[in-house]
Amino acid sequence: MHTLYSMQDSGNCFKLRLTMTQLGIPYRLEDIDILKGESRTPEFLARNPNGKVPTLELDDGRFITESNAAMFYLAEGTALLPDDRFARAQALQWMFFEQYSHEPYIAVARFWRKIMPGGLELKKDFFPEWHEKGYAALDVMERHLSGADYFAGGTYSIADIALYVYTHMADDGGFDLAGHPGVRSWLARVAGQPDHIDMGYRP
Amino acid sequence: MHTLYSMQDSGNCFKLRLTMTQLGIPYRLEDIDILKGESRTPEFLARNPNGKVPTLELDDGRFITESNAAMFYLAEGTALLPDDRFARAQALQWMFFEQYSHEPYIAVARFWRKIMPGGLELKKDFFPEWHEKGYAALDVMERHLSGADYFAGGTYSIADIALYVYTHMADDGGFDLAGHPGVRSWLARVAGQPDHIDMGYRP
Repeated sequence: MHTLYSMQDSGNCFKLRLTMTQLGIPYRLEDIDILKGESRTPEFLARNPNGKVPTLELDDGRFITESNAAMFYLAEGTALLPDDRFARAQALQWMFFEQYSHEPYIAVARFWRKIMPGGLELKKDFFPEWHEKGYAALDVMERHLSGADYFAGGTYSIADIALYVYTHMADDGGFDLAGHPGVRSWLARVAGQPDHIDMGYRP
Repeated sequence: MHTLYSMQDSGNCFKLRLTMTQLGIPYRLEDIDILKGESRTPEFLARNPNGKVPTLELDDGRFITESNAAMFYLAEGTALLPDDRFARAQALQWMFFEQYSHEPYIAVARFWRKIMPGGLELKKDFFPEWHEKGYAALDVMERHLSGADYFAGGTYSIADIALYVYTHMADDGGFDLAGHPGVRSWLARVAGQPDHIDMGYRP
């Protein structure tokens, strides 16, 4: 059975709980509290030298880090990742977009506003830039969703999961989705998928 | 023939020139000067709503954005991307690492120090953090390379290309690789691959 080293509050970790649940893959959860430094111990760094969660330990003892790479691994050959070469590239395109143009603003704003005690005050000078760039990412998503129901290959895939997790709690970072009706409709379509789980779900 | 919308000075664009050259894929280059706003025109935004280079236009008129997604598309089924499922996940793991934990510090420091006129002065307060986090990324690479010649599957792949481009010009951002002998040896191995090209190469 796979082991997921995870922090329950992390959207990147939620990606893997959601993917494994929807694929019917059993797994064991091991909680890692990054606020207590548990991802920086020598024991944890032996699993992931980059010291981050999620880290996925496969049932054969090998490790995969980076949430989107682990999702890709789990989803290959399933309905959550298109077979078509171009559609697979589209899925990756949106997953790289998520990690470079979306997560560093929308997830990071949430982290400092909601997760880290005192973070809002400590990082107050950064919020204007995070909001500007986060809204720019939401605008790019809105534009795509004006002509498509999902992000890659016309069907629900790991690209949707990647973008869903932090978008669906963007308000925690101070974002208002009122001006992004296409994004809101898509969030509802994702939440309506079979075997969808909430952020708090534990196996 | 594919068209690569590209800025010659951009490492992310160099990834695709190098990949297509090594795979023997002919392509046409169209220069886009982001400093002059050419990636933000309505015409360009129709190609890539995120307004970034590289953007790859396939010979059938479809577009792929995000350098690492486009490399994955081009390399599927070739020696530059392992067939093995775990090795492919490793390649993606390092490519996501590159975009999240490496590029935002090592490439961004180079951009403001070397490419953008006046950038070093304008962003001087950011360099300490960029250097701290950039060196942390180099440390993670060094640790991996202490036990492996390449990043994924034991062979040269697009994961190496992704990490090579900004690492090989890290000194432009004020980084010194003297303390990273494994990284320096690996840079030489990458530069010694058949059909390797320099940053300035044009088809």
